[in-house]
Amino acid sequence: MSDVSVTFQPDNKTVTAQSGQTLLEIAAQAGVTIHNLCGGEGVCGKCRVKLVQGKASTTSKVIAFLNKKELQEGYVLACQTQVVQEDVTVWIPPESRQEDDQILTVDHIVQYEEPAALEETPSAEVPYYQPLCRKFYLSLPPPTLTDNLSDLDRIFRELRKNNQEHIPNADFHALVGLAQTLRENDWAVTATVHMKDSDCPTLRAIEPDDTTAHNFGVAIDVGTTTIVTQLVNLRSGAVLGVEASHNHQARYGADVISRMIFACTRGGLQPLRNAVASTINTLVDALVTGNSIHHEDISCLVAAGNPTMSHLLLGLEPCAIRVAPYIPTANRFPAVKAADVGLVAHPNAILHCLPCISSYVGGDISAGVLACGMSDHSQVSALIDVGTNGEIVVGNNDWLVCCSASAGPAFEGGGTKCGMRATRGAVEKIAIRGHEVTYGTIGRAKARGVCGSGLIDVIAELLVQRIIDQSGKFIDFDHPHVRVVDDVAEFVIVPESRSETGEAVVVTEDDIANLIKSKGAILAAMKVLLENLGMTFSDIKRLFVAGGFGAHLNIEKAIMIGLLPDLPRDSIQFIGNSSLAGARLAMLSAHAFHKAEAIARQMTYFELSVHPNFMNEFVASLFLPHTQMELFPNVAAKLARRGNPD
Amino acid sequence: MSDVSVTFQPDNKTVTAQSGQTLLEIAAQAGVTIHNLCGGEGVCGKCRVKLVQGKASTTSKVIAFLNKKELQEGYVLACQTQVVQEDVTVWIPPESRQEDDQILTVDHIVQYEEPAALEETPSAEVPYYQPLCRKFYLSLPPPTLTDNLSDLDRIFRELRKNNQEHIPNADFHALVGLAQTLRENDWAVTATVHMKDSDCPTLRAIEPDDTTAHNFGVAIDVGTTTIVTQLVNLRSGAVLGVEASHNHQARYGADVISRMIFACTRGGLQPLRNAVASTINTLVDALVTGNSIHHEDISCLVAAGNPTMSHLLLGLEPCAIRVAPYIPTANRFPAVKAADVGLVAHPNAILHCLPCISSYVGGDISAGVLACGMSDHSQVSALIDVGTNGEIVVGNNDWLVCCSASAGPAFEGGGTKCGMRATRGAVEKIAIRGHEVTYGTIGRAKARGVCGSGLIDVIAELLVQRIIDQSGKFIDFDHPHVRVVDDVAEFVIVPESRSETGEAVVVTEDDIANLIKSKGAILAAMKVLLENLGMTFSDIKRLFVAGGFGAHLNIEKAIMIGLLPDLPRDSIQFIGNSSLAGARLAMLSAHAFHKAEAIARQMTYFELSVHPNFMNEFVASLFLPHTQMELFPNVAAKLARRGNPD
Repeated sequence: MSDVSVTFQPDNKTVTAQSGQTLLEIAAQAGVTIHNLCGGEGVCGKCRVKLVQGKASTTSKVIAFLNKKELQEGYVLACQTQVVQEDVTVWIPPESRQEDDQILTVDHIVQYEEPAALEETPSAEVPYYQPLCRKFYLSLPPPTLTDNLSDLDRIFRELRKNNQEHIPNADFHALVGLAQTLRENDWAVTATVHMKDSDCPTLRAIEPDDTTAHNFGVAIDVGTTTIVTQLVNLRSGAVLGVEASHNHQARYGADVISRMIFACTRGGLQPLRNAVASTINTLVDALVTGNSIHHEDISCLVAAGNPTMSHLLLGLEPCAIRVAPYIPTANRFPAVKAADVGLVAHPNAILHCLPCISSYVGGDISAGVLACGMSDHSQVSALIDVGTNGEIVVGNNDWLVCCSASAGPAFEGGGTKCGMRATRGAVEKIAIRGHEVTYGTIGRAKARGVCGSGLIDVIAELLVQRIIDQSGKFIDFDHPHVRVVDDVAEFVIVPESRSETGEAVVVTEDDIANLIKSKGAILAAMKVLLENLGMTFSDIKRLFVAGGFGAHLNIEKAIMIGLLPDLPRDSIQFIGNSSLAGARLAMLSAHAFHKAEAIARQMTYFELSVHPNFMNEFVASLFLPHTQMELFPNVAAKLARRGNPD
Repeated sequence: MSDVSVTFQPDNKTVTAQSGQTLLEIAAQAGVTIHNLCGGEGVCGKCRVKLVQGKASTTSKVIAFLNKKELQEGYVLACQTQVVQEDVTVWIPPESRQEDDQILTVDHIVQYEEPAALEETPSAEVPYYQPLCRKFYLSLPPPTLTDNLSDLDRIFRELRKNNQEHIPNADFHALVGLAQTLRENDWAVTATVHMKDSDCPTLRAIEPDDTTAHNFGVAIDVGTTTIVTQLVNLRSGAVLGVEASHNHQARYGADVISRMIFACTRGGLQPLRNAVASTINTLVDALVTGNSIHHEDISCLVAAGNPTMSHLLLGLEPCAIRVAPYIPTANRFPAVKAADVGLVAHPNAILHCLPCISSYVGGDISAGVLACGMSDHSQVSALIDVGTNGEIVVGNNDWLVCCSASAGPAFEGGGTKCGMRATRGAVEKIAIRGHEVTYGTIGRAKARGVCGSGLIDVIAELLVQRIIDQSGKFIDFDHPHVRVVDDVAEFVIVPESRSETGEAVVVTEDDIANLIKSKGAILAAMKVLLENLGMTFSDIKRLFVAGGFGAHLNIEKAIMIGLLPDLPRDSIQFIGNSSLAGARLAMLSAHAFHKAEAIARQMTYFELSVHPNFMNEFVASLFLPHTQMELFPNVAAKLARRGNPD
């Protein structure tokens, strides 16, 4: 095979590739990320790029995604285009770019709110200030001929004196250089002790002088799409900063399945592992710089992620998770030295991953249950975590049952014409009053597309305004924002003239159908789960909704479209990123970590895909809000009232 | 500083050195080992080499060790000779060579006997077959949709089924590649479990197929002079082989103090650490090859050594041990991955070091007490471990007291004119009948010198034959083997004509004085220790003697010269290398390892150097066998009889 030179614009990055490689693969090698959702299978059409110089070989799959004009202009799908013995220059249009080095913070992108439920939990049940890692300042009496304990025993004695805790174990690496550290610092040192297992706390490091004020931890939500990190002062429990970014793994596939395929059939375990580590390291760098601390001040990291993300972070093969009978290497992961998985922190810092429940229900859900506190109360609560996979947990302090439903990428901006993640320029709120359409974008930027919360808003508004019917079909073709393109009806939220890309931001009838499937899968899953428990929606006394829809989820509108059941509004609470909140809690309290382990151990996984009634319930849910309107009495009343507009 | 080329003969190795470096340092860099006892201080005179080409700068210290003829021939002391801007060629004579790549095994060098006491210990008290590391063959039921435990939980379940042991922990590294290993091997694998801490056994590796027949351990006696390793089948407890070699650290100094100086004042920690690891690796290589196993079959190593040797093996600074108040980094060492200290075995193999007692009493003594079983019985026993440092332990199952006496290197071949280690060519046995002298050498080789057991023999014979008096002075100048050289009387064991080196093997009056000091220090230490316990020699019901004197120690003659007290002969037992035996015991039984920890914890160290009576007792012991002859009634009787030769 011969070598070919490939240049990416506007980055102006040139790399050497081999004939036969796809542009998507070559871009990943070059560190240029091209948006894609299907992992290079040619079925999402998101990786459009333009060949501006040279020729390349492409497949017939492009026809489904590119019109004649675009083809003539040189547009191709990067994943379906192989370089062949000719140097090429490729231009990546804005909509195909994935700005994965952009650090997204609370301010201008996703609001990672404290779950309010947490604050309501009596503090006695979630004892703070028992962090997994503590530092103790020791001013040791220097040894004498009569007080001649070894250095290590001297430290143990002082730890016992000061803290009434018996700390009998030391990690070997804490001993290396110990004699010199003690003597060069006049016996004034700080001991770092890991205390996850209260029966055997372990001395992990000895540092010169008093560094107790520099004891930080990082909580990590390892999402398939977005990774969020939070810097926490382990001494006070205070959150010092949040940094978020796209998971750099996205360049190898947008969803969990594509990543598993990449890891297992293309030898991609190491690149995926490196990608998630580099994402976290970049975020930690930002937290360290932004808070004027040092990497060595970070003594502990706690990560929560779905099983595949947890496996990839730890460098474990996720392959057996993908195929029946869907088996992970482990649900409960041993602690590991952060450095051993490529994370930059104190050389002896420990990474704990929160325990998973089953092949597709992960540490993010253990974290969510921990954070919302539903396992602390006798009343029956539910947690819905909406993402590409929707997870539902029902239970109380006695029992917990969960299930997982494939919701598809609609809530995260995939599978729809103008869908995008909840990042800068995404339409997140829409109001329709007659012919007047108003909208708000994230970061108040020019609109580039519409994110999950925007989609929920627009569909609810279209329904209330009778522009679509309850099956999601357009009925008001006289509305000035409704048009038909290529035989498909669509609603124009932002016209061409006012968008960032020069193309209109629209919602098509197909998009609505997609979203109805997504929300239908989640509601049907919850309904079947409850029925199997002999319960109905009304038995849920408290409903927690978690997920990265955007800054806010409009609960009212989510009920309107039938994503959430029609329960009393004050019993439903949007808790934001509960995975991150749970990881932080577990880091700040060994007791909470053990509770997360108990949650994971006790939770029963209910496999929906094999359940005979799920398909019936799914079909019954493919309506706005539902074919059984008696399930949504308040929505029914509201829709009845729309006959008499106010 | 300019570069100088230095060639060593007969190795014919040439290296580049800098002006100012000593020949001893340059030789170490070149991997050529020159014998030396003082670590390059110019006080032992063992590093004689000959400058055959070029000139170098030397100090006046050479005059004490080289005569005029030798100086004219170009002899210098390697440690006192610096290269100066001129290339040199150096010849290393046989007596200055240290054959540290020679593998010494039981057959031709030191007999590392089983301590007989061990076999007498009821087996119930030292339960075998509870090795620190066990392997379990698991034929796992493949997962199904209804039996969908994670891989790790499936392994845990099977371990519990088969062994009624709850094994709840896994080392993170056991999970890496686990999914693939299980599936590629039809769920038939071997689990390696480390069980030192019975409350928390830890899964450390999963290997394909049934490898339970390949579970080996290595017991290591890390001596200052000699390192001995023993390959043990952890399944059966059988010893498969023994390999021994000089500690490669010797090139940086012969004794503990010189090595500490090198480690701490010359940045030599890393070279010393590498040297001991390379010594052990060489021995393990020989064991692996000799027994047709693989390094990966070694799952556990247990080392016993004095505190400095233990520190250097683990890469811990021994500096604070050397100066008052003599503090080690630790007495009890955490387990460490063998690979982390440079030892080649299974990648997840663990190295345990037996616990030390104080700065100068180490894991070799914990091991010795464990091996001789003295802490299991109510009768008071004593253990004497004779080396450069002599250690004495007295006690029973209730209490243990120990002390350490600097015996000097006489018993290991140092500090005497023709002394050498107990290696090939060393005179180890001597009988004098009138004018007839017979002797035996190790390996039946031509005599090169005399080792510890040979020295004891010859002095006892000289005393009985009235060739020397009880103060160690020659009195029979008519004996044909007695001569005076440079005003010093000496006894010729092997004449020039029959030796390997062409020089006579002799014992001088100065040598005898040295040995009297050595044996005096040990006996005085024991006496002071006993007095402080309100006891006398006769309270010792059982005396175990350990050490590397040579193949055998003649108990009778050791009493004759006053090294051992005059106790009933059947209460005294030479147990050989008890450090190695104890390390093996601890490896074969977690119970025994914990017993060694209890021994180390309970033992009281008695500091002799500050005791007012020690010096008096030492001076009183500088006589053959002792100034107080009533302490040695049997010897007195024998010496009285010599007036009437039979």
